[in-house]
Amino acid sequence: MKAAGVVVEYNPFHNGHLHHLLESKNATGADLVIAIMSGNFLQRGEPALVDKWTRARMALEAGVDLVVELPYSFATQHAEVFAYGAISLLNALRCESFCFGSESGNISAFETTADQISRYRDQYDLKVQDYIKQGMSYPSALSSAYQELNLSNHLIDLSQPNNILGFHYIEARNKIESSMKAFTISRKNAGYHDQSFTSSNVASATSIRKSIFSEDGGLSKISPFVPSTTLKALQAYRKRYGDLHGWEMYWPLLKYRLLSSTAEELRVIYEIEEGIENRLKNCAKTSFSFYEYMEKVKTKRYTWTRIQRMSLHILTNTTKQAMMDRHTEPKYIRLLGMSSIGTRYLNKIKKEITLPIVSTISKGNPSDTFLDRKASEIYSLGHIEPEKQADLYRKEYATPPIIVSR
Amino acid sequence: MKAAGVVVEYNPFHNGHLHHLLESKNATGADLVIAIMSGNFLQRGEPALVDKWTRARMALEAGVDLVVELPYSFATQHAEVFAYGAISLLNALRCESFCFGSESGNISAFETTADQISRYRDQYDLKVQDYIKQGMSYPSALSSAYQELNLSNHLIDLSQPNNILGFHYIEARNKIESSMKAFTISRKNAGYHDQSFTSSNVASATSIRKSIFSEDGGLSKISPFVPSTTLKALQAYRKRYGDLHGWEMYWPLLKYRLLSSTAEELRVIYEIEEGIENRLKNCAKTSFSFYEYMEKVKTKRYTWTRIQRMSLHILTNTTKQAMMDRHTEPKYIRLLGMSSIGTRYLNKIKKEITLPIVSTISKGNPSDTFLDRKASEIYSLGHIEPEKQADLYRKEYATPPIIVSR
Repeated sequence: MKAAGVVVEYNPFHNGHLHHLLESKNATGADLVIAIMSGNFLQRGEPALVDKWTRARMALEAGVDLVVELPYSFATQHAEVFAYGAISLLNALRCESFCFGSESGNISAFETTADQISRYRDQYDLKVQDYIKQGMSYPSALSSAYQELNLSNHLIDLSQPNNILGFHYIEARNKIESSMKAFTISRKNAGYHDQSFTSSNVASATSIRKSIFSEDGGLSKISPFVPSTTLKALQAYRKRYGDLHGWEMYWPLLKYRLLSSTAEELRVIYEIEEGIENRLKNCAKTSFSFYEYMEKVKTKRYTWTRIQRMSLHILTNTTKQAMMDRHTEPKYIRLLGMSSIGTRYLNKIKKEITLPIVSTISKGNPSDTFLDRKASEIYSLGHIEPEKQADLYRKEYATPPIIVSR
Repeated sequence: MKAAGVVVEYNPFHNGHLHHLLESKNATGADLVIAIMSGNFLQRGEPALVDKWTRARMALEAGVDLVVELPYSFATQHAEVFAYGAISLLNALRCESFCFGSESGNISAFETTADQISRYRDQYDLKVQDYIKQGMSYPSALSSAYQELNLSNHLIDLSQPNNILGFHYIEARNKIESSMKAFTISRKNAGYHDQSFTSSNVASATSIRKSIFSEDGGLSKISPFVPSTTLKALQAYRKRYGDLHGWEMYWPLLKYRLLSSTAEELRVIYEIEEGIENRLKNCAKTSFSFYEYMEKVKTKRYTWTRIQRMSLHILTNTTKQAMMDRHTEPKYIRLLGMSSIGTRYLNKIKKEITLPIVSTISKGNPSDTFLDRKASEIYSLGHIEPEKQADLYRKEYATPPIIVSR
């Protein structure tokens, strides 16, 4: 059995993801697809619309065969660390290949770029650091350094978000010396950051979320852009929990944390540096929504995503030390769900896997799973009502992997 | 002008307080009464029903002439520290006398008791410590040690809450060698801990709060027991803010703090010791209301009040270090309000006062006022709605002392 890997957030699973999934199977010729998926908090420093179990089920119902959680210590990081964690897990799961969507769509361009940058590593890194020091954002710095080295006439536009991720997937694979073959699929019809719907059946997750959180808030408007299984899952979630999760839900907790902590206490939090803690505190004091706070905090130097990530680590009280202890290598494989094909695959490769498989979090090594458990506990506090909070809390501790027969 | 001091919480101001106020004036022959009042959080580790400004106004309208805040670092402590802070402030304000309510009602019994215990200090303290180590609560230990020393045939029952406070008022006055004369008035008709109404026009604050937070929640039921000014103030507060403050309002924040903090982080909080932090964390995880949490945490050793105080310091993130830096001596006089008589008195004694008078918190020494500002900020987070939160927040920073003409 041949497995292909994908790296996803599925927030929520939409038609573009379905396209990616089918094309990945097609391109790689694999018998099954394994998805490494962010947990309850995402790469841009946001809470997921719905919890990881609901998103894992969406993925399984749409055709993914195995869903494994990308731990908090990788999932909430910039592209390089995010990619490293995900590719390491795919490799640990014995994938023959992996496939990612990109603006470029040209895999040999990615491979060449990674080779070239690796050859000029020192120069490249120096330039990136230089640009960041000058106040440039990480993607711009990456892209500018690349352009300046003038390698192969700019094979890839590294200012595009999916190209950056793709580049880091390849780099990570090379770094761990994995034999996984890389594939890429050109992203069709919707840009990553699109705010509104631009096609009849494919839309970005950003525009879908925007529609969900818009004034009327109905889910019917997104139905052309998501599989019916996604729509049903979101509707059921809303019926059960009242609200889908967004930052505003956690704003009272974040504000409380910012107001009740001293600057010294905030300084030990991951990604807090350069005195930003005072700015965060002061802006929080006079803000009465997360959006108002973000608008007050953001500057040219501090992008929205960067502030969201800092704020997330403050919300989850994730210290530099706790993160450093855990973000070098994935230490376990947290199974969220599988199809019957996924189950068969897992039984077949079980003996070859060196990382422990964690099916129920309470059985995992407490120190390894610490950040993930805490993140889920805090995610559950987005709801105030006891039975909803308890329900989400129990999900983390008592849910065995979801099984979907196919 | 002769001033008499009282030490109060006024949560809320009721007929028993009015009786105490009038009798204090009567007994001491003073021209005015100065009240040292707890701020937004109280001695038993609870949020006050309504903010300190509203309670200061209740006091002024009922006849108090000067209301000064007892800082958080004294107000939320056991009787000895609470009393020391309050008596020191009354002394700083040049009171000729002070007057407290007690179960005993016999001032010479208090004076004799304080003298005797002071004479047998070492023995007494050892016995108290011994009883506490055996798992006795602080009031019981005090009372048992006293009984065991068999001084003057038990002049005062030191297991009674107001007797304990009174005893510590006298002790504090003796300790700072103040010339203030002490008076006591026998508490009439209502016991401190009474849960229900037992008289036609005097009820304990406990029973009044219980009635306010009962199922039907109407304020009319308490009207026989409070001055009309109190009733109106509570009604206006409820109209403005929707809810009166209680621990349940802060439960989401406390639960979040407990779940997101490590045991190590909790251990630096004031009053957290002996491994109780793990018990608090575990009980919080499976509790969905403050009451449920308290019921789970409490043991014979850990009284309700003790757990409430710990929980309050966790809520306000008050560390051992921060408290120790501030609870030895009051460092400022925070004016909450005054009558025209109070204003005249203050002008007269201004030159004799050595502590700085803080009329607007933003003008106080930031390090000195740190805990009080933080406590008020967190108190304001009890309300979720922006305008209510902002309003309470502004009160702390922008309210000049209330002036009531008489």
